Amino acid sequence: MITVVGGAGKVGATTGAFLLMRDVDDVVLIDILKDKPQGEALDLGHMASAIGSSRKVIGSNDYKDMAGSDIVIITAGFPRKAGQTREELLAINAKVMAEVSDAIKEYAPKAKVLVLTNPSDAMTYVVYKRLKAPRSQVIGFSGLLDAPRLSYYASQKLGISPASILPIVLGMHGENMFPVPRLSMVGGVPLSELMTKDQIDDIVKKTVSAGAEVIKLRGYSSNWAPAAGLTLMAEAIKNDQKRAIIASVILQGEYGVNDVVAEVPVILGKNGVEKVLEVPLNDEERQGFMKSIDAVRALLNSLPPEYK
Amino acid sequence: MITVVGGAGKVGATTGAFLLMRDVDDVVLIDILKDKPQGEALDLGHMASAIGSSRKVIGSNDYKDMAGSDIVIITAGFPRKAGQTREELLAINAKVMAEVSDAIKEYAPKAKVLVLTNPSDAMTYVVYKRLKAPRSQVIGFSGLLDAPRLSYYASQKLGISPASILPIVLGMHGENMFPVPRLSMVGGVPLSELMTKDQIDDIVKKTVSAGAEVIKLRGYSSNWAPAAGLTLMAEAIKNDQKRAIIASVILQGEYGVNDVVAEVPVILGKNGVEKVLEVPLNDEERQGFMKSIDAVRALLNSLPPEYK
Amino acid sequence: MITVVGGAGKVGATTGAFLLMRDVDDVVLIDILKDKPQGEALDLGHMASAIGSSRKVIGSNDYKDMAGSDIVIITAGFPRKAGQTREELLAINAKVMAEVSDAIKEYAPKAKVLVLTNPSDAMTYVVYKRLKAPRSQVIGFSGLLDAPRLSYYASQKLGISPASILPIVLGMHGENMFPVPRLSMVGGVPLSELMTKDQIDDIVKKTVSAGAEVIKLRGYSSNWAPAAGLTLMAEAIKNDQKRAIIASVILQGEYGVNDVVAEVPVILGKNGVEKVLEVPLNDEERQGFMKSIDAVRALLNSLPPEYK
Amino acid sequence: MITVVGGAGKVGATTGAFLLMRDVDDVVLIDILKDKPQGEALDLGHMASAIGSSRKVIGSNDYKDMAGSDIVIITAGFPRKAGQTREELLAINAKVMAEVSDAIKEYAPKAKVLVLTNPSDAMTYVVYKRLKAPRSQVIGFSGLLDAPRLSYYASQKLGISPASILPIVLGMHGENMFPVPRLSMVGGVPLSELMTKDQIDDIVKKTVSAGAEVIKLRGYSSNWAPAAGLTLMAEAIKNDQKRAIIASVILQGEYGVNDVVAEVPVILGKNGVEKVLEVPLNDEERQGFMKSIDAVRALLNSLPPEYK
Repeated sequence: MITVVGGAGKVGATTGAFLLMRDVDDVVLIDILKDKPQGEALDLGHMASAIGSSRKVIGSNDYKDMAGSDIVIITAGFPRKAGQTREELLAINAKVMAEVSDAIKEYAPKAKVLVLTNPSDAMTYVVYKRLKAPRSQVIGFSGLLDAPRLSYYASQKLGISPASILPIVLGMHGENMFPVPRLSMVGGVPLSELMTKDQIDDIVKKTVSAGAEVIKLRGYSSNWAPAAGLTLMAEAIKNDQKRAIIASVILQGEYGVNDVVAEVPVILGKNGVEKVLEVPLNDEERQGFMKSIDAVRALLNSLPPEYK
Repeated sequence: MITVVGGAGKVGATTGAFLLMRDVDDVVLIDILKDKPQGEALDLGHMASAIGSSRKVIGSNDYKDMAGSDIVIITAGFPRKAGQTREELLAINAKVMAEVSDAIKEYAPKAKVLVLTNPSDAMTYVVYKRLKAPRSQVIGFSGLLDAPRLSYYASQKLGISPASILPIVLGMHGENMFPVPRLSMVGGVPLSELMTKDQIDDIVKKTVSAGAEVIKLRGYSSNWAPAAGLTLMAEAIKNDQKRAIIASVILQGEYGVNDVVAEVPVILGKNGVEKVLEVPLNDEERQGFMKSIDAVRALLNSLPPEYK
Repeated sequence: MITVVGGAGKVGATTGAFLLMRDVDDVVLIDILKDKPQGEALDLGHMASAIGSSRKVIGSNDYKDMAGSDIVIITAGFPRKAGQTREELLAINAKVMAEVSDAIKEYAPKAKVLVLTNPSDAMTYVVYKRLKAPRSQVIGFSGLLDAPRLSYYASQKLGISPASILPIVLGMHGENMFPVPRLSMVGGVPLSELMTKDQIDDIVKKTVSAGAEVIKLRGYSSNWAPAAGLTLMAEAIKNDQKRAIIASVILQGEYGVNDVVAEVPVILGKNGVEKVLEVPLNDEERQGFMKSIDAVRALLNSLPPEYK
Repeated sequence: MITVVGGAGKVGATTGAFLLMRDVDDVVLIDILKDKPQGEALDLGHMASAIGSSRKVIGSNDYKDMAGSDIVIITAGFPRKAGQTREELLAINAKVMAEVSDAIKEYAPKAKVLVLTNPSDAMTYVVYKRLKAPRSQVIGFSGLLDAPRLSYYASQKLGISPASILPIVLGMHGENMFPVPRLSMVGGVPLSELMTKDQIDDIVKKTVSAGAEVIKLRGYSSNWAPAAGLTLMAEAIKNDQKRAIIASVILQGEYGVNDVVAEVPVILGKNGVEKVLEVPLNDEERQGFMKSIDAVRALLNSLPPEYK
């Protein structure tokens, strides 16, 4: 059973749909909005019936319905409002994370937790601190959004399937992300050998601004790609796949960094993060990565003290 | 290649997502709204990359981008506005259908056309008349929504997978639909033997009001289930599956009915509707079915004359 | 984890391949033949790697490696040798079943057991008696071979996908099987209305002799279809699908029959057979069914007394 | 439609099964053995029915039934007999290739051709020469066997899914294959950094002898893994996936080599080999690769002159 907290939101409900489409597990959508998760679940139930799935889906306004979940996906939270400072938003969403974490502690303490809520690096940290769980259990989503976007733009340029482009993206989600084209391979060839420096700069730039571009074009933020990424992560954990996936974890000495959340390649299996991979950066790359790490650190520092 | 007209709408974009998820074909989303189909396509492109799909998806505001499509799915149209009469809405959406049909005639004249826009029985008729194509080419969606909903509610009662419940639903979409529990089988046993009359009445009532229930709960109409149904129909046509699916077609003598659109079981293959199945109704059922047909006829009669 | 006993045989190894192909679970192939199951497992492991599966597969000559299995599939046994009487074969394979049952009792006492070994009706009975488990736990395979074969031949005649033909086949596996065309539906229409009596007789005859035809043509008995059927049954149990599947169970009052194994539609879920469906036979059909039941009873009677 | 020549053989029939399992396309099995391909096709037809597939499969002894195929897979040929020299075998199988090529030229001249028959490097060359087709159309299988085997053994050591290990294997099939651990990546980390030199030597050795090990254990050569690899290649071509796959092609200047068949990463799409990727070898690797190339050249030189 997989619970999506924030299940009445766009990303949450879409994640429910994809979990059913890929036959991953039964789904519980939890949301504070009255009737909304039930409405999504009803439509999703009809959908499951249409595709001949035997999976169950329910909507709920009560955290206790997450009981029995192997995985809890957190998509709940608020978008930034006009006039709100970045710090105010951080505090508001941190409060949501704390509340959800307390519910998880009570009803599904062994669940692996995937955190999408933005800013996801900070929110992952808040959940980790609040749950007091091993870091393997709390996994920030964003790597499986940034990385496929880089593949997407590379694919458009190269005419090669994104499935065959294995992008390495490290560090912070968003504009401070740090892609490593030299270690991003296409059939054994680094991206940096298949494209010019200008081309790479272009696809990196597009990757960084991809989320903003989607908002600009259609008026609201991405749901399809994040939901697909979350679904794949849940699948890797549920089926103990031991797959290498780029995800945000609390570093504990890897890359010489401690107690900071960062996107890195990890092995996902039934225990959550089963291994953190350290990619062999050269000096220049290491500097770029550390800049990204510094940006996360600054973000974490701006969290209200009760969440650190 | 499959085109979704109305591709920036909720059902349209979700259909695009499911076509990619199930690896059916490349997708073109066309919509009159500026930038919106491009925004959906961009997010869907990132999603395709995340799941390792090689399918392509583009958004467009130009009908000519449907050129080369094997299938065109029409989800475009307007919802009813306050103060608008039913006839006014009918006229407005019929106009949209006519416009889309003209585009199909110009850019993808051989495409199989799936019509979801409501009232779908009437809109299917308008497209059929305007295209002047054989009836096999124009297929109304709604059967693959009504039928899975009936399975869903039966499944809830019986504790049996909806995949093993084969509901027969005939006639008009919506409140005048005509379910046939005696011919709806679960492993060789009619639904009417597995449930009491009251239970059947209950699930039929819930099926008829399922769409309204979704709206009531979450504030807007279904997208997950319709998109799944459309995706399965497209799959049956694209891969020439010759599957029995409940869909709306122009009857031409079957069931003793002529020139009326109705939900009936049909065989879908690469030529669209390859066969219309006539289920063996008893006298009472036949009467119920004819009432439903009369309701469609009344609806078709209320179409503005230029669309008949 | 799913164990296939007889995993070095043609059907056993193919079942392992399909379980991996459909990503059902990890697989253990057990066989008494030295090195053979290990060889199959090695090739299957390479195959899993090729398709990007994370499932594990091992081969073993030791029953204790079934420990932890949710499902045990028995394909072990001997084919009939020249000069051997039917009773001699029955006794030999019953002995194999007893041995495997004892191993299951020791190492995987909660496992759901699928029995393919021929004559499967009798072998299912032997395992059931020997395990002393509830009948829900011991399921004879053959229905999901006879039924799809009937669909296959009907499909060839009708030009409709076998997926849309829902055949009802009851009673004994093999030449005494009892198909019910009146309750075998295609989109709400009984097979008996879509085909002439002669056509139905023809497809029934072909279904009954399908296994022999495969042997005649290629020199050895079926493996692809049985392995596919076993895989679907395992999937239904593993994922708790509650699907209606035709399978052989020990009847306990259903159809007025007691303590006889017969193919009937059942609901398969995580507990094995969760429900036995009684299809509404008319008088003539009931007589045909009882003749088939009598044939099973005669077979069971010819079992050596220690296995009854 | 996809034709498998040698469709009654173990690899051929298994490829047919997997093409159906993965819903790639309709299948034609052609073989010179009387009745055998028909027998395989019949069992496979029953299997397709069991899994609810609408794909068709036929068996034939007549090359003309490949007419209309988009892809022809050649698995036909003889194994080495006792007392036979390597050159004698080469000549015998080259003759089979010539015959099949002539049939392809006549009945499916545009088909993409996948060659599995051993020694596959030489047989690919023979088909290429005989067909006089562009090299993009004739693709040797073996890379998608050697590479997944390397992933398999690495996976066993690392406890990471083979799906996340991207092995680069170059050159000749068999004992002269040339793996490149430095460019074989796991989440951005080269295999050569995750394993010791000894470990790598060990998995390379096991990869090279994997085929022999399967034969030793179970008495006949691999079928599951080769059939899976062929299926993925057919899928990439059929669905125009533009995937990076290691396959054998006739080099035309790449890596400084001309008119020699070698395993290299290529992009497979609807046109067959759409691009040859040149991985950036260092000096030592280049020498290793050239040794492997020399071994292919020697093999090609030993072909009877009429096939060069």
